[in-house]
Amino acid sequence: MMKENCSATSSFGSIPVSEFPTIPGREEPGAHIGEEITLHGSIHKIRKMSDFAFVILRTSHELFQCILSPEFSSFSVDGLKEEMCVRIRALVVEEACARTGWELRLTDVEVLSRPAAKMPVVINQKKMTASLETMLDHRPLALRNEKERAIFRLQHGICRAFRAFLEGQGFTEIHTPKLVSQGAEGGANIFRLDYFGKEAYLAQSPQFYKQMMTGVYERVFEIGPVFRAEKHDTARHLNEYTSVDFEMGYISSFEEICRMETAMIRYALDELEAEYAKELALLCVKLPKVEEIPSIRFHAAKELVAARFGRPVCEKEDLEPEEEKLLSELVKEKTDSDFVFVTHYPSSKRPFYAMEDPNQAEVTLSFDLLFRGLEVTTGGQRIHDYDMQLAKMERRGMDPGLFAGYLEIHRAGMPPHGGLGLGLERFTARLLELDNVRRACLFPRDIHRIMP
Amino acid sequence: MMKENCSATSSFGSIPVSEFPTIPGREEPGAHIGEEITLHGSIHKIRKMSDFAFVILRTSHELFQCILSPEFSSFSVDGLKEEMCVRIRALVVEEACARTGWELRLTDVEVLSRPAAKMPVVINQKKMTASLETMLDHRPLALRNEKERAIFRLQHGICRAFRAFLEGQGFTEIHTPKLVSQGAEGGANIFRLDYFGKEAYLAQSPQFYKQMMTGVYERVFEIGPVFRAEKHDTARHLNEYTSVDFEMGYISSFEEICRMETAMIRYALDELEAEYAKELALLCVKLPKVEEIPSIRFHAAKELVAARFGRPVCEKEDLEPEEEKLLSELVKEKTDSDFVFVTHYPSSKRPFYAMEDPNQAEVTLSFDLLFRGLEVTTGGQRIHDYDMQLAKMERRGMDPGLFAGYLEIHRAGMPPHGGLGLGLERFTARLLELDNVRRACLFPRDIHRIMP
Repeated sequence: MMKENCSATSSFGSIPVSEFPTIPGREEPGAHIGEEITLHGSIHKIRKMSDFAFVILRTSHELFQCILSPEFSSFSVDGLKEEMCVRIRALVVEEACARTGWELRLTDVEVLSRPAAKMPVVINQKKMTASLETMLDHRPLALRNEKERAIFRLQHGICRAFRAFLEGQGFTEIHTPKLVSQGAEGGANIFRLDYFGKEAYLAQSPQFYKQMMTGVYERVFEIGPVFRAEKHDTARHLNEYTSVDFEMGYISSFEEICRMETAMIRYALDELEAEYAKELALLCVKLPKVEEIPSIRFHAAKELVAARFGRPVCEKEDLEPEEEKLLSELVKEKTDSDFVFVTHYPSSKRPFYAMEDPNQAEVTLSFDLLFRGLEVTTGGQRIHDYDMQLAKMERRGMDPGLFAGYLEIHRAGMPPHGGLGLGLERFTARLLELDNVRRACLFPRDIHRIMP
Repeated sequence: MMKENCSATSSFGSIPVSEFPTIPGREEPGAHIGEEITLHGSIHKIRKMSDFAFVILRTSHELFQCILSPEFSSFSVDGLKEEMCVRIRALVVEEACARTGWELRLTDVEVLSRPAAKMPVVINQKKMTASLETMLDHRPLALRNEKERAIFRLQHGICRAFRAFLEGQGFTEIHTPKLVSQGAEGGANIFRLDYFGKEAYLAQSPQFYKQMMTGVYERVFEIGPVFRAEKHDTARHLNEYTSVDFEMGYISSFEEICRMETAMIRYALDELEAEYAKELALLCVKLPKVEEIPSIRFHAAKELVAARFGRPVCEKEDLEPEEEKLLSELVKEKTDSDFVFVTHYPSSKRPFYAMEDPNQAEVTLSFDLLFRGLEVTTGGQRIHDYDMQLAKMERRGMDPGLFAGYLEIHRAGMPPHGGLGLGLERFTARLLELDNVRRACLFPRDIHRIMP
């Protein structure tokens, strides 16, 4: 059966690390005028004209319009199909009328792969016209649309920038478990599973773990998935999302966390402006200006919105989504800021580990960050003192024994610390002004959807 | 009840982004000789001498030995306890006898927090002497040991370097769902859960999603958690681990993937050498030299090991762990390489999406990378042609209907592509020559452990 020619004494081969092929996304035909170049990609679109054709090649980063004509092409347009993967040869010719100053004349083509069927969704128009549900049903294909894929290129840019900023500020990246035996937030919104005969949960946040790690590295961050079994079916909710978490020790107030976040966002916006001009232009994104972010205390915010819009205050202990919107509008009007920190949330609505204001136990040293009407971050200072934490758990009727592992850090000694979690998809969606957070998630999970 | 002074017309406050405090890890007392400096950290260790005391301060990155003496300190050692968090003032004094050339004389201390109990494990010796199980039981505390935390600082360095390399090669970072309706690897090793009344699984790898995304960006990567419900209880297995995945389109052979990995590892080792000298020295790590990585075909490897060590070949279709070890020893002996690619694994042991060798259908265009005796990577070229994939699934008795979402990309057209997954913990463990992969995972999950 085995045709392989091998002997026990054969010496080893090796896979030489030779020059890499072109790095995708770095093609600049304009630098090769008068030369023939090679490009690879998918045939995004074919437009047949009377005696020639436009063939739009979709490379990893660009759409290149190429001209196919019997005059210079060694092949006919009839042999081409949209979504074929090809390697082309093209002559770069100076052309004053072209937007770029040059045009690509196809000389040769090598077909690398062929589609077996037509695309079930149209992806080669400027903008997808399919409904959100259809786009999500065919997500791997819909993402080939240039605007759709630009969204996640920008999301990559945001992550890169957040990481670079945090690393520059001395934060260490951690990887914490998603299979846990306790939910940090508690409550019903938690996925359960059988773990070798024990009950386990999917982490709603890396909360406990990042706190533990401030005792080790002082400053830590993680960008990873979190899971919420919420039955919400809104344009703001996902059941699995990517959380940008950081936690920092030796703080003297929760405002230091707000400051760190302000600087992080500013850094990311600067990076996007510098490095992602093409994607921003394609999606017509107007980057917000961030100098200092205004802040308002929770109760003042409630009253302000109630007074200005004549809304009755139904939910006293939290901001309703509509209030977040109205507050953001007010902030924009008064301060021109797209962001606002709402601080000092009521204790009743914050988790057991939230530090209370020493001057006013009903409120916590915590905050949310609203961005263009949507909460994108929750953060605050945590209790670091063992006795204080124990007393609070007892007031809440919690059994500290169930949290022995977590409380071990408080017993052994912890620095004053706090941090935040930012929803990457929400942040992306508000930045790009997408109307549904699903559009900022590659493969969203919601109450109805776990496919593809 | 509400004591807050707020009025509906109050203007917004703001949280100014002022200068950040010292970035942890950048403290260099040596640059401040003759000056008084401020440091914060935990009291790692107190050693009382006859008329003075050594107080070792553990900052985020360093251990600083400080001297406490009535001669210059405004406080007594009796007020200090190990694991207190403090802010100290210290005079930096030139001292020829000290290893550093200076010493720190404590002048003042501010206690920021106090432990409530003694540490349940000793962490302030050079090396932890507790058993692995005890260390893991008290993981958040054990990680405060300087050697333990150095492991994960290096792991951060590895991740940073991998990302930087891949970004430089035009890879786009993606975030794919961990809640899935299908397992890429299939089989019994999968965690199941209820997802709003439907059965869902935890992703064993981002396989399908990263393949989908090569049709969008050509090159993608993800560093994230994967879940395997394997009942193995060995020093090599984790039930949740961090997988470094990349996938690249427009390849002309699987060797291109090997080359990319070789270059990625080389880049990471260079980065570690340049940026993490302190951690490497602390852990006595000898970085392997990587120029070109030797390769050997699977069947040749089997025969070589059988012949050299007189081992009977029991498992014909896979390498046994012992064989991986022996093969690595042979490779080291013959080529001085700590790495070896084993290529062309039998089809029977590779998943349905693995591309078969056109010249020899029993083997696949796939590889594993062994590092110091342990498989740390599995990769290969994937089938991109719809008909070929369908035929292979039918040969295997699989129902293509169950994979309709995945196969949509093949139907619509896909570039030739392939990629790999590297286990971050395994890679770290072999690099640092740790005897158990759990030691390279912050909070390991195994068949017995889901806490802390």
